[in-house]
Formats: sequence, structure tokens, C-alpha cells
Amino acid sequence: MIYIQNAAQLATLGGAGNKPKTGKEMEELGLIEHGGIVIEDGIFTFVGSDEKARSYVEQHAGNRQVRVFSAEGKTVTPGLVDPHTHAVFAGSREFELNLRLQGAKYMDILNAGGGILYSTECTREATEEQLVAETVKRLDRFLAHGVTTIEAKSGYGLRLEDELKQLRAARRLDASHPVDVVSTFMGAHAVPVEYRGDADGYVRCVIEEMIPAVAREGLAEFCDVFCEEGVFTVEQSRDILEAGRSWGLKPKLHADEIVSCGGAELAAELGAVTADHLLHASEAGIQAMAESGVIAVLLPGTAFFLMAKPADARAMINAGVPVALSTDRNPGSSPTESLPFIMNLACLTMGMTPAEVLTACTINAAHAICRADVIGSIEVGKQADLVMFDAPNVLYLQYHYAVNLVDTVFKKGEAVIQNGRRVWG
Amino acid sequence: MIYIQNAAQLATLGGAGNKPKTGKEMEELGLIEHGGIVIEDGIFTFVGSDEKARSYVEQHAGNRQVRVFSAEGKTVTPGLVDPHTHAVFAGSREFELNLRLQGAKYMDILNAGGGILYSTECTREATEEQLVAETVKRLDRFLAHGVTTIEAKSGYGLRLEDELKQLRAARRLDASHPVDVVSTFMGAHAVPVEYRGDADGYVRCVIEEMIPAVAREGLAEFCDVFCEEGVFTVEQSRDILEAGRSWGLKPKLHADEIVSCGGAELAAELGAVTADHLLHASEAGIQAMAESGVIAVLLPGTAFFLMAKPADARAMINAGVPVALSTDRNPGSSPTESLPFIMNLACLTMGMTPAEVLTACTINAAHAICRADVIGSIEVGKQADLVMFDAPNVLYLQYHYAVNLVDTVFKKGEAVIQNGRRVWG
Ligand SMILES: [Zn+2]
Ligand SMILES: [Zn+2]
Repeated sequence: MIYIQNAAQLATLGGAGNKPKTGKEMEELGLIEHGGIVIEDGIFTFVGSDEKARSYVEQHAGNRQVRVFSAEGKTVTPGLVDPHTHAVFAGSREFELNLRLQGAKYMDILNAGGGILYSTECTREATEEQLVAETVKRLDRFLAHGVTTIEAKSGYGLRLEDELKQLRAARRLDASHPVDVVSTFMGAHAVPVEYRGDADGYVRCVIEEMIPAVAREGLAEFCDVFCEEGVFTVEQSRDILEAGRSWGLKPKLHADEIVSCGGAELAAELGAVTADHLLHASEAGIQAMAESGVIAVLLPGTAFFLMAKPADARAMINAGVPVALSTDRNPGSSPTESLPFIMNLACLTMGMTPAEVLTACTINAAHAICRADVIGSIEVGKQADLVMFDAPNVLYLQYHYAVNLVDTVFKKGEAVIQNGRRVWG
Repeated sequence: MIYIQNAAQLATLGGAGNKPKTGKEMEELGLIEHGGIVIEDGIFTFVGSDEKARSYVEQHAGNRQVRVFSAEGKTVTPGLVDPHTHAVFAGSREFELNLRLQGAKYMDILNAGGGILYSTECTREATEEQLVAETVKRLDRFLAHGVTTIEAKSGYGLRLEDELKQLRAARRLDASHPVDVVSTFMGAHAVPVEYRGDADGYVRCVIEEMIPAVAREGLAEFCDVFCEEGVFTVEQSRDILEAGRSWGLKPKLHADEIVSCGGAELAAELGAVTADHLLHASEAGIQAMAESGVIAVLLPGTAFFLMAKPADARAMINAGVPVALSTDRNPGSSPTESLPFIMNLACLTMGMTPAEVLTACTINAAHAICRADVIGSIEVGKQADLVMFDAPNVLYLQYHYAVNLVDTVFKKGEAVIQNGRRVWG
């Protein structure tokens, strides 16, 4: 039995039921001052005032050992959830930064064979073991920043065997690392060089070869497409996501990142779980997403790193779209694992409130990967993933910016980070 | 004898002579691929290729013990220098963030008795011991981010005994913590409530009581003033800085942060060591600074956190002004100790290059606190302050953003951080 004692503030994020939070609900953190938590067998069994938690322990411990972790002066939140990453890849692309600082645009670099295509070369050359080894470092950094679950996409293989290799690496990481890794197949991340000028041919390959192979091996839960001018059209994206769905892969969409091209509308039409990026989503698209209940996954780190204007989070929240946030961890447009910093950015560059950003990185992010029944809030019966921050209140997380305030992380009821330091494995 | 072996890249920042770097010089990092360093008695005694470093060790070690630190795959830079902080204070002000996110301006909060005046209340109530204890945590975070020297200003006392208390706390911290703390007297940080409506009366108190007392006790090396519309005028600032100089305190100036009011011009007129902030510096002011050799200390974190447009770094570099960067660590407008993140911001929001930002946080920052004879570069004869980053090259520091890449820190030839973890004291 584990007893987390006397948190200065405990943000449970509870009470939302089985839907993501929208509008004013995003401000409700289920805050408890002087909160206490009990964990048994990796599950939260008591959440409430510290006084009552103490009574619970006295009544239920029996002759079991009780491990007490003081949260005095600290803020406790659910384990953070990152619902959009491309964290499984080989190689790094710092050299592009100088090009971009000199004015090169993201699509210029991609069209010149850089960007995703460069990462594809590196990832194809790497063995599955090498991919696992490179990605472990990223998962370690995620965990050190309080992130206990991530989604991870394929899309740097761009041919069958390498897409499978990426997804198999993700599965091995999920099994071996404390961070849970939820997989998305994203063969339609770019048109590979072998198919240059024949995007339709590549789409057929994705639909006819890749999706069935991924589904048969049970390697992914979602299917995603980079729907963007010059990458995949709305029609191609629809065909891929419908094919994915017929094989049991739930649809997600990279939508309206660089230009407005109907991505938000397509996500709503398909009833996608999420539409992501949305820097240039149309008003009609946002409205349609709200009506279909599509979650907007916003990536302000990518806008920051690409020196672009971020998505209009306020318009989406006001329209009733549930919003989640993510690092977009990838080797080109957002090389960071700091989801806490993404929250700082969401406040300072997108006008989200400190409460909204916490909702967006916990319960709404859990909904964005269809895991809200298990994670995303500190509620009795849920998996005991939590973070203890060196902060007197939740507001402070958005105040003491760009430093890592994580003190302690529990994953499935086990302390994996203590005093900011790895204590697992 | 300490041998730092085989750095993937070693940025020495050497060869600038005794002037801060300007213009194109800011791009010159004195890079050595496969670099090696030898430290004896806290001083760099060899800096060059790893091959030659190895020979140096073989020839000079004699029967002394040689401690070898591998820098394989890592980037080594001088210890970072933060030339502008208000790190010695009590209390925190996260509650202001909600006001600001709702649209309140920095000067509105100050005029309502918040801002600096709130921190002054907390700092006056704290004992010297409490100030030391609160600030130690900040110095620990600075060190963990590779910062081995900071400047720290008074200015939350705003009456004689409390200004002295702040500066004595800084002196104790300098003596007891690995981070060196260089002190600046800034009694003219705001007009305290006791003098509301009588700024001239407070200026007389600063000049006639505070400066002499600070100087007699040898508590500061610099004198600084918040020259800003609604705070201290150009005339008041001039009087204070001239009085300071007559007592041996070198002039610095908070200039043109919120409106353009002739701060840059005044800094040039006085031959100040630095003018800081400069968001609204005039073209003529920038030109005058270049001619007088005043260093611009830019604080993009403050602009980021206050959601303001940052200073025009490119105009200053193009005009020949030497530029340094700083966190501005303070409880209101920039609560961070991550100088590496300030470098990320300087690239992404001010258009500085990855080489320029490193110059600005090392040798130019050392000049900004008149310490370039001792620190700021890795050169034979200088104090052995250095940082080893988990990065294959200097460019990578601006690429893998908003996470702490510091692996190892040496201060005065002693390893104080290893594997990102404190190993001193
Ligand atoms: Zn993406
Ligand atoms: Zn300042």
C-alpha cells in the first residue's frame, strides 16, 4: 500500500465522466488542497483530503506495509499524456535549423529531399535494435518531464518493412519502458522518393499492402495521414483513413498545418478521434469538429520552433471543441520532450489558461488516444500514474517557466522518478 | 591534474583579446573538433586538439594523479555567465500570471502595489538567512543549467537596511555556493511606498545614504537604475549613476524596456558597462551605444513571459553593439534559471544565430560584468569553468529545445555536476 501524503494541491482532473472536457469544463481541475492518495496494486483506491486518506490507510492497511511519500509543499497531477509524437526515428536534423534561421521554409526543405525524407533515410538504415536504443533516451526524457504515456506514429519507414520495423520498435519500447507507448500507423506521412510524382501509387501501396499488414500483426491502434497541400489531398486522406477503419484502425489526421485545405472538415466528416495542428483550420471546420466531437490536438511547440503563428486555441475552446496539447516530438519541427514547456507555450502564445492547459495534457489527452477509462485523472479505480511537482500550486507550473519542476513520478503505482532522478530499472 | 578527453566539439570562445565581440566576431566560436583540455590547480593549462592534450598530459603529469573525464560525443563550452539577475528575493508571484493572461499590463500591476512592490514586502519581512535559503535553490538550478557565474542586483529592499541585507545575502551566497555571484546595487529599482509621490526624495536617499553605505561595506561592484517612464527619469538616473561612480560603482542601466525614453542614449553618454532590455531603444541610442562600446544585455525571456515583442538584436549586432544575453531571473517578469532556453529564444524570436547566442552567454556576458579576464572562454590561464552538454555539436544546443542538455559542469576546476546531477557539497 502506498500513501501519498498531504499534497499542497492535488489536481485530480476527475468528475468528467466519459467525455473529453469542453468549454468551461476545461477550467475544472477537481482541486483538493491538502490532498491525500492511496494506491494499492497499481490502482488508486482512495483520493480525497489528506485527513480522510490517513483514516483510509489506518482502516485498510491491516498488516500490509505502508510506504509513505510526502507531497508536502508539492502539487500532484495525473501522469501527463502526450497524444501526438513521432518519437521513434533515427538521426537528428540540427543542420536544418541554420537553413530555417536563414529563411528556408519547412516545405522547401521537404521538397529538396530533406525534412521527413532525410529522417526516412536514417530510419531505413537503422536496425530495429538501433531504433529502440535511440528512442529509449527520448522516453527517459519524457518520463523525467512527468509524461507517463505517449502516442507514437510510424511514418519514417515509408515502405512496408520499415514501417513495420518502426511499429515493432514502438511495441518493444511499450513493453520494456515505464512510459506506455500507444501506436499509430502513419505510412502516409510523406510520399517516399521511390514514388515521387506518383502519390496515388503510394496511396494504393499504403491501402493495399501496409494497412493490412499492420492490422494483421496488431501493431497499431490508430491510422493517421499528413493531409496538406503538396503532401496528401483530402481525397487521398479519406481513402486511407476509411481503409484503416475497415481494418480496425481509428482515424486521426494531421490537418490544416501549413495551409487551409479542408482537413478539419474531413476529420469531422469521418468522426476522427482527433485532428491535429490546425494552425489554418477554417471557422466552418472548427464548427464541424465541435459538432462531431473531434478532439483538437494542438502543438504550439511546433509553431514556436518553426516561427509560425500558433493555432487559435481560444476560438476552438469557445466553439466547444475539446482541446488536447502535445509536444509533437519529432526530429525536424519539434525536437523536445518537455510537455510541461508546451503548457507554458500554450498559455503565453495561445492564450490558454493555466487550468485549461493542464486539462489538455491529462484527461483530454487521454481521450485523444482512447485511454481515458484507464489514465488521465486521479480517480479511484484508475491506473496510478501521477506526477509530483516542486510547485506550491498548479498556477506555479506556468510561472516558473522552461525549467523541469518534476520531483516524483509514479507509473502504475511504482515510483520511477524521485528527486528528479530515475529510480527504476 | 584533470584531463577532459576528446570532446566532439569544443567551443573555446577564445582569441577575442580584451574586448567584447561585435558584428561578425560574434560568429567565431574558436571551435575545435575532437578537443582536449587540461586543468591544473583550477586553471586551464592546455586547450587544443585531443591528441596534443594527451601529449601534454604524458609530458607534464609526472607522478601526479590524472583524473580523466570523457567528453566523447559531447559538446564543451565555457561555463555560462548570466549578467543580469534579480535572483536574491523572497516570495513568488504566480498569482500575477492569471492577471496578466487576462490582460493586465506589467506597469498596471506595479502601480496597483503589486510587482516589484510585492516582492519588496516579502523581502523586507525575510531575514538574511531566509533570503540565503530561498536563493540557494535558484543557484542550484542555475548550476544545473550550466551557469557558473551570475550577476545579482539588490532592489527588493528599497530602504537602507534591507538593501544591505540583500547584498549581504548575495555575498554569503558567493562565498558558499559554487556559482559565483557578482553584486550590483539597485536601490533605484522602484519608488517604495514610503516615498510615493516623492521620487526625488527617494533619489536623494539612494544617493546620500544607500550608495555610501553600500560602497563603504564593499557590497557591490556595479550600480543600476530602472530608467523608465513612471519609474526613474533620465535625469534621476544620471544623478544616481554618477553618484555611484564617484563611490567606485560602475554604471549599468535598465533602459527603454517599456517605452523609448532615452535610456540607451544615457548609457552611451555615461559610458555605462551595459544597457539592458532595450526593447524600445531608438536608432540613435543604438548608434551611440556602439560608439561608446556599451554592451547590450538582452532579455528575450522577459519579453516572452510578458508577451511583448523582443528587442531588435539584429539591428544592434549590425550597428556594432556587443550583445550579451541573460535570464533576467526575477520573481515577476522572468521566473527562470534556464539560460540555455534563453539561447533557444534568442534564436527563434530575435533571429540571432546559434553561434551568436553562445558568444552572448559566455565571453560577451563575462565582459558585461567585467570578468572577461578570468572567465567567459576556455583559454590557458583562465579559471576552469566549463560545461559539457549531451549534444554532438553547438548547433544541437539550439535544436533539442526547452530541455536541459547539461551533462557535466566544472567550476574552478572541480566537477560540481555529473550526469546532470549535483556532486558537490
Ligand atoms: Zn505530427
Ligand atoms: Zn532587471
